[in-house]
Amino acid sequence: MKKKLITAIVVCNGVLCDAECVAQQIRRADLVLAADGGARHLAALGLIPDVIIGDMDSLDPDLLDRYSAAEVIRHPRRKDKTDTELAVELAQDRGAGRVLLLGAFGGRPDHVLGHISLLSRFPGILEIRETGMRIRALQGQILTCIDVPPGGLVSLVPFPEAWGVTTRGLEFSLNSESLTPGTRGISNRVSGTPAWLRVEGGGLLLCSRENGFD
Amino acid sequence: MKKKLITAIVVCNGVLCDAECVAQQIRRADLVLAADGGARHLAALGLIPDVIIGDMDSLDPDLLDRYSAAEVIRHPRRKDKTDTELAVELAQDRGAGRVLLLGAFGGRPDHVLGHISLLSRFPGILEIRETGMRIRALQGQILTCIDVPPGGLVSLVPFPEAWGVTTRGLEFSLNSESLTPGTRGISNRVSGTPAWLRVEGGGLLLCSRENGFD
Repeated sequence: MKKKLITAIVVCNGVLCDAECVAQQIRRADLVLAADGGARHLAALGLIPDVIIGDMDSLDPDLLDRYSAAEVIRHPRRKDKTDTELAVELAQDRGAGRVLLLGAFGGRPDHVLGHISLLSRFPGILEIRETGMRIRALQGQILTCIDVPPGGLVSLVPFPEAWGVTTRGLEFSLNSESLTPGTRGISNRVSGTPAWLRVEGGGLLLCSRENGFD
Repeated sequence: MKKKLITAIVVCNGVLCDAECVAQQIRRADLVLAADGGARHLAALGLIPDVIIGDMDSLDPDLLDRYSAAEVIRHPRRKDKTDTELAVELAQDRGAGRVLLLGAFGGRPDHVLGHISLLSRFPGILEIRETGMRIRALQGQILTCIDVPPGGLVSLVPFPEAWGVTTRGLEFSLNSESLTPGTRGISNRVSGTPAWLRVEGGGLLLCSRENGFD
């Protein structure tokens, strides 16, 4: 029998903004994992994760004691992956077809870069959610909808470059063009629906947010 | 006559930590540019940039008036590049052989990604400095020293992947191995000097910090 694909949330140890919005997302998720010190964010929201995973080097032991209702998976400190990557792998093992990373930004800068790198390890599965923005990795030949209403913000960041990029429904259109390293694709705006994006090859980070510019 | 290569600092509109350390770096630089709203950080430190560049959409007009001693380069709002990219290009045009980006993290997440993408547009020239960490892009075949004392933190983030990676003087060594998307290269530590890194091909972000783990 095919396993049912579920939505999981991994809470990382970076900075968590928009507490109320985050709490709503967490309540809607099928599976909630805290990557080590990320558990502190859940504690602050009065929520209990299903699983706490990591080497527990950034988690207050008192907090761990308080979370007796959560499953705790402890990894050795000398390991090949960060706690976040272990959490995403576990979510996938438990049937997650979609994994949202919260608190991925704002922590140690190399951890932020690691979280971004993870996106392209799990394209189509993993998303970063950050201050109302969705960040996804697109790789190779792909066609995707940009499900944001007119006025919404869209940024395309080459990772490290993409070719044959075509967009429709955006204020600045691309017509089978290449995006090379740089900031050319930042701060576009949805002008009509349906907005969509086609890429022939390479890699791209697609950032979208329902509300427009700051 | 060959132009003298100078060190420039570009202050972005993200979050600026370590005010005192930042002020020292700025005082040592040959050329200081504020990318639009980044000027607010300089104002808070009581410093005047040589140049303010951008579309001025994120800068308080009163602040701009106060900066009559600075050169102001105003670009149209509808443009192909962010204010930060324009600032880095200008720094290079004015002879900068090294450009340090401050305040690159902590702002809008797509801007953070754009700053990271810029690193690989200017490898060997551009560096992000963030909470004591240096972040540089390495591309193609390269050998570089990791000039950090024993105990210092080193993270290697594939961007999006690198092959033939060899390290020496680090706690966890790599021997002509590939780094694929993920977090395997995060949180290494310098164990002996000289520490160095060789890459045969691909792309990599090298993060280093003199002091070790948080």
